[in-house]
Amino acid sequence: MLRPEHHLRSPPATTPASLRSSISFLGSRRLFCLPRAAPPLRGKMSSAVRAPEPELAHREVARKLAYHAEARLGARLLPSAVPAEVAEFRNGAGNAVGSLDVRRGSPGSTIDFMLQSSLHCKVPNGAIDITSLLLFLNASTDAPHFLMELIQGNPTSIVVILDLLPRKDLALHPEYLEKYYENTQLDKQREKIEELPQARPYRSQSLFVRSACSPTAILVSIDCGQGGGSIMDEVVRGQLATAAKELLQIWLDTCADHTSKMEEGEREYMIKRDQIVRSKSIEVDLTSNLPRMFDPDVSSRVIAEIRKAFGVQEV
Amino acid sequence: MLRPEHHLRSPPATTPASLRSSISFLGSRRLFCLPRAAPPLRGKMSSAVRAPEPELAHREVARKLAYHAEARLGARLLPSAVPAEVAEFRNGAGNAVGSLDVRRGSPGSTIDFMLQSSLHCKVPNGAIDITSLLLFLNASTDAPHFLMELIQGNPTSIVVILDLLPRKDLALHPEYLEKYYENTQLDKQREKIEELPQARPYRSQSLFVRSACSPTAILVSIDCGQGGGSIMDEVVRGQLATAAKELLQIWLDTCADHTSKMEEGEREYMIKRDQIVRSKSIEVDLTSNLPRMFDPDVSSRVIAEIRKAFGVQEV
Repeated sequence: MLRPEHHLRSPPATTPASLRSSISFLGSRRLFCLPRAAPPLRGKMSSAVRAPEPELAHREVARKLAYHAEARLGARLLPSAVPAEVAEFRNGAGNAVGSLDVRRGSPGSTIDFMLQSSLHCKVPNGAIDITSLLLFLNASTDAPHFLMELIQGNPTSIVVILDLLPRKDLALHPEYLEKYYENTQLDKQREKIEELPQARPYRSQSLFVRSACSPTAILVSIDCGQGGGSIMDEVVRGQLATAAKELLQIWLDTCADHTSKMEEGEREYMIKRDQIVRSKSIEVDLTSNLPRMFDPDVSSRVIAEIRKAFGVQEV
Repeated sequence: MLRPEHHLRSPPATTPASLRSSISFLGSRRLFCLPRAAPPLRGKMSSAVRAPEPELAHREVARKLAYHAEARLGARLLPSAVPAEVAEFRNGAGNAVGSLDVRRGSPGSTIDFMLQSSLHCKVPNGAIDITSLLLFLNASTDAPHFLMELIQGNPTSIVVILDLLPRKDLALHPEYLEKYYENTQLDKQREKIEELPQARPYRSQSLFVRSACSPTAILVSIDCGQGGGSIMDEVVRGQLATAAKELLQIWLDTCADHTSKMEEGEREYMIKRDQIVRSKSIEVDLTSNLPRMFDPDVSSRVIAEIRKAFGVQEV
């Protein structure tokens, strides 16, 4: 996923620069990287990590979106097939807990998978919370994937990555751009979020991530300033939730049911492109960061499940 | 070219909303559109339009860049082949003057063409000045094109579009992205300009334009506020000129001499992509706007020369 690594340059007051790692898919080197000098402890779980992840406005928004997608997709989603030790995983050091759920699409549907993940990592002055919702389509269609990532470094600031990820070269396919991005007026949602006084553009340090996103992607950092926790909650439950719902609705209406007539060469081309985007995401991100937060056996299991969902092998 | 049409929403104080049109290549609907109710007068040229275009800092910067490119490319550029009536053209109404120069690449070189254009259009409270420098490569290479457009709506604000235009799908070709954009550290130039206190991101309304640009494109509006004319001059001759020189130097060193081994299918694909980007630029921009500024015979001749340079036919 996409990481707000520019926070490294100007970390929010309540987020120590030392605490950093993420489970994030359209990766861009490290946003949050755990200090090399302080590797996670390994051993028995402490009682502290058994506490459930805290309820955050952004997590509630993501959960509601996921429910909505599940309700609409119905039997097109198979039951979750994630082993229990990956469905919820913890760090022996007692500072991190995560969850992962993957539901594959049923045979004959356009759905490849729906992936939800959540990560909570305690740090000296607070916590980092990352929530992701991915709805990826298979090769029966060239319609865009849905991707949302919400990365909250402290109670008053959040990075938002919200996009319908294109599966074609948009400069070569103006008709694709018109169909999925112009006719759906996706850009209005981006504008609404960028017009928020608390929002500023978020530019991934990874040029690959920037290239993979659509020109209507919502890529912003929302910062409500010290003491702005209640404003943040309002923005997240208000404008952000609305934009995310709109994007999901557009995706459900325009992309999720849509099979595409393609020539075989065209389909092969799209599959190759999809594979590169998926592999690159995992390579630059998860494989370098997750082992720094979780015990090796835990991170290996989690990465293996994500690879399985993405349909990409280790290189 | 690319147009700062968002000025339409918040036009600078000294730029009347009624004056608008451009000769701009990676077009994005109208930035400046002449009012339909006041078409250009046709007839004898007034003495006013015989005045030369005013000397502006941004025009001087563009001219120096062009000299530098010409000096470096030497015999790889053929002499200018633009007819005199297109090399300089004027509006019968006496409010606009433009110039166009195109030098084709010599046979066997990688250069397709070098295009310089300049437009000066008087308006009730001032003038609009647009300057472009394009260095496009032919199909012997897949290296990016160089594109610079500077659009000055009044003495204190300018829109800058400065990019090495990719010729491949960057999400499908991470090695291309690495070679031309990461290894060359192009993003540092973008950062330097975006860090200017007077700069804010410029987002084209055209999703196609956004898709055609690279992730390191400098797309900013620089606004120095009322009375900031001298600051604008400093910024244009200082940081902007430096960034533009750096980009041109990178292009000259990394792209201009570079022929590429490509499979035939790959080359065909690139040519098709190039043609779409070129056609789309002309279609959404010049053909709809130039006739609103210049007499039909003048605008037709200018557009025909640009089509010839771009190698695209009227559709």
